[in-house]
Amino acid sequence: MNASNRLAVVLLSGGLDSTTVAAITRAQGWRILALTIDYNQRHRIELEHAARVAKALGAERHIVLPLDLTGFGGSALTADIDVPKGGVEPGIPVTYVPARNTIFLSVALGWAEAAGARDLFIGVNALDYSGYPDCRPEFIAAFETMANSATKAGVEGERFRVHTPLMTLDKAGIIAAGQTAGAPLELTWSCYDPTPDGRPCGLCDSCRLRAKGFAEAGMADPAL
Amino acid sequence: MNASNRLAVVLLSGGLDSTTVAAITRAQGWRILALTIDYNQRHRIELEHAARVAKALGAERHIVLPLDLTGFGGSALTADIDVPKGGVEPGIPVTYVPARNTIFLSVALGWAEAAGARDLFIGVNALDYSGYPDCRPEFIAAFETMANSATKAGVEGERFRVHTPLMTLDKAGIIAAGQTAGAPLELTWSCYDPTPDGRPCGLCDSCRLRAKGFAEAGMADPAL
Repeated sequence: MNASNRLAVVLLSGGLDSTTVAAITRAQGWRILALTIDYNQRHRIELEHAARVAKALGAERHIVLPLDLTGFGGSALTADIDVPKGGVEPGIPVTYVPARNTIFLSVALGWAEAAGARDLFIGVNALDYSGYPDCRPEFIAAFETMANSATKAGVEGERFRVHTPLMTLDKAGIIAAGQTAGAPLELTWSCYDPTPDGRPCGLCDSCRLRAKGFAEAGMADPAL
Repeated sequence: MNASNRLAVVLLSGGLDSTTVAAITRAQGWRILALTIDYNQRHRIELEHAARVAKALGAERHIVLPLDLTGFGGSALTADIDVPKGGVEPGIPVTYVPARNTIFLSVALGWAEAAGARDLFIGVNALDYSGYPDCRPEFIAAFETMANSATKAGVEGERFRVHTPLMTLDKAGIIAAGQTAGAPLELTWSCYDPTPDGRPCGLCDSCRLRAKGFAEAGMADPAL
């Protein structure tokens, strides 16, 4: 697909998945508006990584939007609940942040409509996805339908699209796609619960999925 | 309907509509979690009115969430575009904030899920509504479908509902419903573009719709 230099809003957390998505977006010829949400996450270090990635990929603009969800509670990523370290378990884990992707995509939709973009990119995938409901194709389809009913552009006959280029890839596939697209994987951050001196814990779900991915892709993690 | 003391998240701007909704919610027996979004709106004075209304209606909690949408541009309510004063025109006006109700309901959904609430209340209505697409029943239905696909509670078989008790009322009907439910209409604020000394301009769409409503309801505006 060649995007003919059109604008797209890319949700960029600074992790492996969203960085790969941003690189794919650029490789497809889109001009990138990168959006990072500062939701007062425990792993705030990812915000710095997002900025480095946005710069490395030549994003036209990068907005880090403060949106403090800690007052709501309910997640190990934002509240005072321990991040699990025992391995990936079946079911939806306590690191689930209620309605996170809904909130992030809604904000991305607002920026997109204001900026004249009609395309949103998000790095969700339905395989190695930690069991979050808002990473499934059904959710993405429902969000698109809602977006086209919610907006002036949608009502006037334009279509918003939510692109999920990683949806059917496993972590090793994402890493391979990232390499192909020239993603700066060495700048990415994944850990949910960094050590006091700012290194990945190696034990949370996100660290485990990342390590498994690089092992299966047959390469060393360039960020370590 | 008796809500048997269950929790509901009510989007409360401090205006006539959302204050009436909050009063109806309370009259139906819900415990209120009031959510106000500080999106750096030109009419920031409404935030103070929201706080007074939340207190008057005995909200269990009131969160004013900072969510600065001014960086996105695109609306007379958040950017440096003049608020129209010439009368209500057909079509979607420049006071439209891209994806505003989508963003607000998404954040409300996040709080609701975290707090164990499954019911959201919002004061949209499809009649005297200034032409915003995200005030129509189609949008609300699409949001509900999306919400039940997005969330852990939704996926686990619980249903989120978005209540719109004002949907089919005109402004006079809203004022009558507010009076019936005991809404503190004297504490509300509607104007999009307050004068430097903090009074309603009397000329923007929101002022005009409010004045028309009170005239048709045959009562004086208790906030003036």
